[in-house]
Amino acid sequence: MDVVAIGNAIVDVVASAEEAFLAAEGVAKGAMTLIDAQRAEELYGRMGPGLEMSGGSAANSMVGLAGLGGRGLFIGKVSDDQLGAIFRHDIRAAGVEFDTPAAPADGGGPPTARCLVFVTPDAQRTLCTMLGACTELAPDDIDEAVVTAAKVTYLEGYLWDPPRAKQAFLKAAEIAHAAGREVALSLSDPFCVDRHRAEFRELVDGHVDILFANEVEVSSLYQAETFDEALQAVRGRCRLAALTRSEKGCVILDGDEVHVVDAEPAERVVDTTGAGDLFAGGFLYGHAQGRGAYDCGRIGAIAAAEVISHYGARPETSLADLVAQRLG
Amino acid sequence: MDVVAIGNAIVDVVASAEEAFLAAEGVAKGAMTLIDAQRAEELYGRMGPGLEMSGGSAANSMVGLAGLGGRGLFIGKVSDDQLGAIFRHDIRAAGVEFDTPAAPADGGGPPTARCLVFVTPDAQRTLCTMLGACTELAPDDIDEAVVTAAKVTYLEGYLWDPPRAKQAFLKAAEIAHAAGREVALSLSDPFCVDRHRAEFRELVDGHVDILFANEVEVSSLYQAETFDEALQAVRGRCRLAALTRSEKGCVILDGDEVHVVDAEPAERVVDTTGAGDLFAGGFLYGHAQGRGAYDCGRIGAIAAAEVISHYGARPETSLADLVAQRLG
Repeated sequence: MDVVAIGNAIVDVVASAEEAFLAAEGVAKGAMTLIDAQRAEELYGRMGPGLEMSGGSAANSMVGLAGLGGRGLFIGKVSDDQLGAIFRHDIRAAGVEFDTPAAPADGGGPPTARCLVFVTPDAQRTLCTMLGACTELAPDDIDEAVVTAAKVTYLEGYLWDPPRAKQAFLKAAEIAHAAGREVALSLSDPFCVDRHRAEFRELVDGHVDILFANEVEVSSLYQAETFDEALQAVRGRCRLAALTRSEKGCVILDGDEVHVVDAEPAERVVDTTGAGDLFAGGFLYGHAQGRGAYDCGRIGAIAAAEVISHYGARPETSLADLVAQRLG
Repeated sequence: MDVVAIGNAIVDVVASAEEAFLAAEGVAKGAMTLIDAQRAEELYGRMGPGLEMSGGSAANSMVGLAGLGGRGLFIGKVSDDQLGAIFRHDIRAAGVEFDTPAAPADGGGPPTARCLVFVTPDAQRTLCTMLGACTELAPDDIDEAVVTAAKVTYLEGYLWDPPRAKQAFLKAAEIAHAAGREVALSLSDPFCVDRHRAEFRELVDGHVDILFANEVEVSSLYQAETFDEALQAVRGRCRLAALTRSEKGCVILDGDEVHVVDAEPAERVVDTTGAGDLFAGGFLYGHAQGRGAYDCGRIGAIAAAEVISHYGARPETSLADLVAQRLG
């Protein structure tokens, strides 16, 4: 197994929206806002016609990894309902192992999580997530043998939001390290970093070998004024740090080495949902294959460029073919 | 009200597929095959990752009509489940009235219908439909006042498959004619015509003012060898007949007049799902506005060209703007 990923198991509901709509709803553009079931119903009622597709940050990364030929397993909690069945089908059909038992749908248990994704004309995505059954993820869902067998255990920062998932997260990190494996973390979202800054800093120092963050997230983590300041702050704290900067590409800190990787030219930019997820998936694939940091960054950039060229956070074309064409 | 449409209320599950997959599954390419719940589960298990989006032939037509500025109402049966809620949200968000009560989901009632849509690399779509809750549509779901108030009552031929829907269909047609309104019918699918040929011929002669059919369907209806033979067979049987021929455009019979309308150039052809539905929606919009047959055909062609340029059977751009640009 290359990577086992633990994350929120979410079905996305994607619709285009105008900036004015987000402003009227008081939703922070470009960020992920947690919403409860009642707010989800209200917002959905005012949302345009949607496309439903499986999502979830770490789940998207695993689909990217599998599309490149890597072996990935996902751990996350759906409910035993129609959207849960869709999530389960899609991730398996993409070649990712997924066996986490569903939470029962009867008896008023929370439904499968959904994320309302509003895509504005500038291709930016704004996320409103109802966590639903994700709140049921617990340490028992972490199988020690699975984590021990994987080269990397990958965790999304969003898991810090549902209370018990955090325990699952820490259990997995401890098992991985006890087995001499690596732990990777994505910071997920600047607001998520805001909610959990002190704990995330401890995590990075104590548990994380490979850190994924975009410019805004890493700046939020260290409350830095500039990207360079954030870069200096994170330096030396983990073995690898991949800091993404959208169209400016990314900077990878690999021990003492610093690599600058240009963004991959995108054919068109329709919906940036999943760009960070696919970058991480591509990077981790390269890493599991034993590639150097620069190549890992290039593979991540190629995967990210594919996913922003269409609606939805999962690739529509063969990432393996794209990487073969562009990287050789 | 411009048009009240009665049809199967379906959520589409769209995935790309190779021709070899269809052959291995024994599914007729380009057609609509009815499948039961067990077969749906098997096929879905072997299908690639999907996009879920609301569909249903007449429902798609109403979304097209509403996108052009027309007033449409849809009658169809979903279950009180997650996919039913998605269908209800999407059609209302598109501006179509939809108030048919859902069938109860408890007690083992059938779930909301879903259609597995396999899109082959040639952009052709192959449909496998599990009718689910659509089989619960019954004459009681037809509100006499609603049908009486609409200029046109539009019926999809697919309704002939679920047994009780046929009764609802005939009830609506009788109410419409008693009120001096028009009745339109789409033949839906050549296999559907095969299943119900004799009844469809009687319908066309006795109940239908406006007939929509593609070349294959109308040829099947009259068991004609050539398009011209089919055209001569249908001539004089209803007030208007719009016979579509994909990239060859369409031929419209308007009493004694015959109009030939070229296909609208499509920017790209990705997925032909919904082409006929959107043609009918555009045509009916023009007709309700009092436009002549040629213009109605042009509006239909513009709407169809939009929907084949992307995945899914409902427009992603403003049809009203497209028609304003192209037709003036």
